[in-house]
Amino acid sequence: MARLSFRIAARDGNSAARLGLMDTVHGPVETPAFMPVGTHGVVKSLTPQELRASGTSILLGNTYHLYLRPGHELIRDLGGLHRFMAWDGALLTDSGGFQVFSLASLRHVRDEGVDFRSHLDGSSHLLSPELSIEIQESLGSDIMMALDECPSQPSTYDTNLRAVERTTLWAERSLRARSSGSAALFGIVQGGLFEDLRRRHAAEIVSLGFDGHAIGGVSVGEPREEVRSVVAATASLLPEDRPRYLMGVGRPEELVEMIGHGIDLFDCVLPTRNARNGQLFTSRGTLSIKREEYARDPLPADPECDCPTCRDYSRAYLRHLFKSGEILSSRLNSIHNIHFYQSVMAQAREAIAQGRYGEFLTHFLSRLRRGEEAEARWSHETGP
Amino acid sequence: MARLSFRIAARDGNSAARLGLMDTVHGPVETPAFMPVGTHGVVKSLTPQELRASGTSILLGNTYHLYLRPGHELIRDLGGLHRFMAWDGALLTDSGGFQVFSLASLRHVRDEGVDFRSHLDGSSHLLSPELSIEIQESLGSDIMMALDECPSQPSTYDTNLRAVERTTLWAERSLRARSSGSAALFGIVQGGLFEDLRRRHAAEIVSLGFDGHAIGGVSVGEPREEVRSVVAATASLLPEDRPRYLMGVGRPEELVEMIGHGIDLFDCVLPTRNARNGQLFTSRGTLSIKREEYARDPLPADPECDCPTCRDYSRAYLRHLFKSGEILSSRLNSIHNIHFYQSVMAQAREAIAQGRYGEFLTHFLSRLRRGEEAEARWSHETGP
Repeated sequence: MARLSFRIAARDGNSAARLGLMDTVHGPVETPAFMPVGTHGVVKSLTPQELRASGTSILLGNTYHLYLRPGHELIRDLGGLHRFMAWDGALLTDSGGFQVFSLASLRHVRDEGVDFRSHLDGSSHLLSPELSIEIQESLGSDIMMALDECPSQPSTYDTNLRAVERTTLWAERSLRARSSGSAALFGIVQGGLFEDLRRRHAAEIVSLGFDGHAIGGVSVGEPREEVRSVVAATASLLPEDRPRYLMGVGRPEELVEMIGHGIDLFDCVLPTRNARNGQLFTSRGTLSIKREEYARDPLPADPECDCPTCRDYSRAYLRHLFKSGEILSSRLNSIHNIHFYQSVMAQAREAIAQGRYGEFLTHFLSRLRRGEEAEARWSHETGP
Repeated sequence: MARLSFRIAARDGNSAARLGLMDTVHGPVETPAFMPVGTHGVVKSLTPQELRASGTSILLGNTYHLYLRPGHELIRDLGGLHRFMAWDGALLTDSGGFQVFSLASLRHVRDEGVDFRSHLDGSSHLLSPELSIEIQESLGSDIMMALDECPSQPSTYDTNLRAVERTTLWAERSLRARSSGSAALFGIVQGGLFEDLRRRHAAEIVSLGFDGHAIGGVSVGEPREEVRSVVAATASLLPEDRPRYLMGVGRPEELVEMIGHGIDLFDCVLPTRNARNGQLFTSRGTLSIKREEYARDPLPADPECDCPTCRDYSRAYLRHLFKSGEILSSRLNSIHNIHFYQSVMAQAREAIAQGRYGEFLTHFLSRLRRGEEAEARWSHETGP
């Protein structure tokens, strides 16, 4: 029996977009879905209630961070990550690999796993596929990810070939390491920007019988245009009947485009990280709240948005909070950005259900482009 | 007609404690009341909804900070401070004097006002009684404070005498500067630790016909024991039929004691500032959440508390957030501390209504003292 029920409820006639329903122990997840990132057992600055209210049904938890602090055994002993952070929705955990490759120092990859030193205290660790599964099971994840080797991009054919071979080896070990009765497990397709490697690796990973499939190594420095075609090609090689997850992507326009290629799941730190830097996503492009022109602006961040931030506060107030270095600035901006992302997802799902995804995509991208060109004039065009 | 309706609903038989009701344009305020401090137009890290949910009915706004950034005229043009920060409850604003004396550089006091340089950009300003009223009226305050001279303590008799004389002069000018139909205005009694100066100044300030009276200069470095008797003596000289406000005080045990001397209003940054430093107030004393002993503690911060933080989160999680430098740490700790303060106020009001304030005070202080002595053992005593 499958460890994750996934049902496709509707397909768009003119694209690969599909509307799905994943059933987890912690509730249903309608796809396409965006997963806010809960790095240290918290989506920075936000409570579970605020995430729920934004339309979030699934979060991503970071294995690397929680393993180092406070430790997966501590979280297990306290009842798991859901209880620890008071989140009762679905949780996907990453394998820890991506952070080891991007944050840890002195890392050394060998077949056994990745040797690395903690970015917190310099202590030495070996992250193996087996340890990654042990950590994710301790956290009580609903969807676990198999450890992969994730080279920074662009890198050579040979580097990507070795990463593909090792990732397959680790994928097999991850499946064997999983306890009976534990969570769903997704495999990750690597291969960089090389279509033949992606094709070969997709076939290998798919043959192993994972509950779902992810496309990795596409948010690590590559040129955007090339990524697009690689993702589209790879997505079409993944089985229709399992969820497809594009890791670490991305901007709203990338999400809507990739949904058109049949992607179901996304995660990204952009909405929360950019919020803390004062950048707000809107249906007409981004808005940098620190700009002088907003000092006396009585409009909400996005006049078309119905989030708590846009309901209660003016751009002038948001700018004041940002300039004053107030914690509430990060909160209100994060609430808006997460709400915006989830509202884009909800619109995408509705468009798929109505069989007009192509139309939605064109309209969305063209409004965004017009808005980006005219940020400075937006407030005057829109009116109170 | 009075600009502020204040009615005493009950008196404690064995102390000067009283239960009151202030009616403001922005809703009723039951006294004794604690006012969280909204320095930059925000109670640090919290939303108005969270403040309401904690039992807060009145906030304090800081004239000095808002005058410098974003500017009182900007706030006035955007509809006032209530609208700017989305707070629909009552607002008391200070005069700006205390911050000029404690934060600004190169300050020089003369009869006209206080010359100072902004701590933000070094610009030169003169804060006069008239400007203070203008700023507070621009903010749309419900209760304004007259500008006072607030010497750091302890200081000499002569210094305090000059401050008393100048404060009376400024009090008269503040009353004259107030527009017809604007908010209530409170006068401030100075005099340091000298009872004769306090007596003289109380008589002068009371004679001017303010809507309420404050005791100033008691949270600026003086020894606690001496402050106690000065406050008690001064409070008894202030008219029964107007609210009495003890500025900048203080710890929970000080609040409950001063309520017994007839104080109605308090403000203090302690609950929010200490929250950000990881100190939680509880009915059994303070708890420093960063301590190692809480690393695996499944109990809530205060097992007797029903705030959202204590409802959803363990000490282990709160410690993890603090150690990880997460914004949510400041939020959850602030929610708990403000809730604790407001719950002490609610208990105090109930005790007064039932004529057993002395009993409440004794019980409160003795639990607190026993708890402070035994912080390390508390978790084990209480049990899950």
